[in-house]
Amino acid sequence: MTALYGRIALIGLGLIAGSMSLAIRRAGLAGEVVGYARSAETRQTAREIGLCDRIEDSALAAVRGADLVVLCVPVGAMGDVAAEIAPGLKPGATLSDVGSVKRAVIDAVAPHLPQGVHFVPAHPLAGTEHSGPRSGFAELFDNRWCLIVPQEGADRAAVDRLEALWKAIGALTDEMEADHHDLVLAVTSHAPHLIAYTMVGVADDLRRVTDSEVIKYSAAGFRDFTRIAASDPTMWRDVFLNNREATLEILGRFTEELFALQRAIRTGDGDHLHAYFTRTRAIRRGIIEAGQDTDAPDFGRARKG
Amino acid sequence: MTALYGRIALIGLGLIAGSMSLAIRRAGLAGEVVGYARSAETRQTAREIGLCDRIEDSALAAVRGADLVVLCVPVGAMGDVAAEIAPGLKPGATLSDVGSVKRAVIDAVAPHLPQGVHFVPAHPLAGTEHSGPRSGFAELFDNRWCLIVPQEGADRAAVDRLEALWKAIGALTDEMEADHHDLVLAVTSHAPHLIAYTMVGVADDLRRVTDSEVIKYSAAGFRDFTRIAASDPTMWRDVFLNNREATLEILGRFTEELFALQRAIRTGDGDHLHAYFTRTRAIRRGIIEAGQDTDAPDFGRARKG
Ligand SMILES: NC(=O)c1ccc[n+]([C@@H]2O[C@H](COP(=O)([O-])OP(=O)(O)OC[C@H]3O[C@@H](n4cnc5c(N)ncnc54)[C@H](OP(=O)(O)O)[C@@H]3O)[C@@H](O)[C@H]2O)c1
Ligand SMILES: NC(=O)c1ccc[n+]([C@@H]2O[C@H](COP(=O)([O-])OP(=O)(O)OC[C@H]3O[C@@H](n4cnc5c(N)ncnc54)[C@H](OP(=O)(O)O)[C@@H]3O)[C@@H](O)[C@H]2O)c1
Repeated sequence: MTALYGRIALIGLGLIAGSMSLAIRRAGLAGEVVGYARSAETRQTAREIGLCDRIEDSALAAVRGADLVVLCVPVGAMGDVAAEIAPGLKPGATLSDVGSVKRAVIDAVAPHLPQGVHFVPAHPLAGTEHSGPRSGFAELFDNRWCLIVPQEGADRAAVDRLEALWKAIGALTDEMEADHHDLVLAVTSHAPHLIAYTMVGVADDLRRVTDSEVIKYSAAGFRDFTRIAASDPTMWRDVFLNNREATLEILGRFTEELFALQRAIRTGDGDHLHAYFTRTRAIRRGIIEAGQDTDAPDFGRARKG
Repeated sequence: MTALYGRIALIGLGLIAGSMSLAIRRAGLAGEVVGYARSAETRQTAREIGLCDRIEDSALAAVRGADLVVLCVPVGAMGDVAAEIAPGLKPGATLSDVGSVKRAVIDAVAPHLPQGVHFVPAHPLAGTEHSGPRSGFAELFDNRWCLIVPQEGADRAAVDRLEALWKAIGALTDEMEADHHDLVLAVTSHAPHLIAYTMVGVADDLRRVTDSEVIKYSAAGFRDFTRIAASDPTMWRDVFLNNREATLEILGRFTEELFALQRAIRTGDGDHLHAYFTRTRAIRRGIIEAGQDTDAPDFGRARKG
């Protein structure tokens, strides 16, 4: 494939940046991929495993001459990082990010944007519970959606090129408005994560059930929650603090429904429970038909005989 | 391996009974495995795929002469099924079940128990979101725990033999008291299932986010919930109606914690969130170290490059 950008700079070298770098280099989508991370330790690891073509010791040096700069740090750090690199951005370059929240990132980054630099926020809906420079792999984005959130008056060519990059990396792309993005993600990601964290916390806290019991008997359903709740604490703190309204709205709806189901249990209303549990199966079928999950029992963990 | 029982009868031929039959026959743990299910359709399917050595058209005929009878029907049906088969049970036989709730099943089954029959309730902590006679596979119980719940004054030899069966099937075994079982399972299974069902219901219900959006963008966390919420509605209705108190107790604790985290989001208390999200990682590590889940990212769904 011919390169879409001469030089791409990735700021932050964790799961997402690492996976991007591996996918971009595998497909030859950039002349050069330059990386930078805050800590010397991460930069050292990135150098050791050859995560990028070049690792710089300052963010400014990393972005210098780059045609595309992608901010791959926690949502709460985007504004400061944008301020730091702004003086080094070359006119005509595109600045993007991969933050899990869009409105807050746009508000934090836009004020630092130099004239002539195109800002095209994006969010690849792909991840695992692992993080750090060693956690990336080139296939992470295959067949996953990447949402592009173009700003008013955005340069169409810059948006199209970023979309082409994500497609070439293996992703499917859609464009979406920032507030709607934040609401959709509150449903498909942020609320489920908070709920999983909460349930695991409750299990850990109970006096009458030991941690060893929880661990041994987790296969009955709970262990799926623990995977989600093993995700990076800093990333998720920032997500909740920066997508506050939408997350709280969805959690409010969730609590309402949960109370209704609790009441059905208390009053022995089996019909209500049965109807509710039947309705929720359609969504699962849709996800499998859309190729967004496997139908193998238990995600394929249970080996089919 | 030498047979542990001459004849084993399985009543109900779904995921659990099917998997038991395949595992028992593979290892030669019984002289014969006889099966019975309520509907002619399920019996027909079971015959077609050779699920058991023999399928009978009545429960009474199936249990006749059996040394072990295992009730593999939804928890709410256990009492009626026990009443139906009781006259056919042979003296000295063991009656067991695989119900996900133990106190209610014991209360429902015990009154029908003929003299000289040993009742040894059990619960294998293994399952998938699939059900029915075609969903079973012999490896389902490998390395999973099966909890045995011996009754006061139980015949030790009968308990030991059932435990030996589960071990030979591939499971690990523990003994537990019925009420404690129900509380532990409320934490590791019942509350997580209700929560998953609720969250999927909320997503399905929202006006401002379409089902198609929920389906396309589910990989960000939500799809794990949909797998759990695709489980059999009848089985789960019965679980909640029959483990009411423990489930409601755990859901009460869950709501309390969720409110505390919601308040932390609302007030911007990042430290509280970060500390909570850090604490929950230890349980995940324990589960992986105990061999109860894979450490492969995203349950191995994400192919490691
Ligand atoms: N993981 C997912 O599931 C997922 C999915 C889609 C989008 N995202 C988004 O992608 C971004 C990166 O996530 P990730 O999973 O790749 O995270 P990660 O593996 O934890 O890596 C985060 C990177 O950001 C750096 N960093 C952390 N705090 C920083 C700060 N205050 N200032 C400057 N740099 C900082 C870290 O540097 P050091 O290594 O030097 O500490 C690290 O290189 C986040 O905005 C997240 O919301 C994540
Ligand atoms: N699935 C799990 O994850 C799991 C794990 C551990 C324990 N369990 C327990 O194992 C038991 C069976 O679950 P499963 O997953 O094997 O279920 P399943 O695949 O849905 O099969 C249930 C079987 O029970 C029969 N049945 C349903 N309602 C009945 C009634 N009212 N009277 C008589 N028979 C009835 C069905 O007959 P037809 O086919 O003729 O309708 C079917 O053969 C339940 O008690 C459940 O709590 C389940």
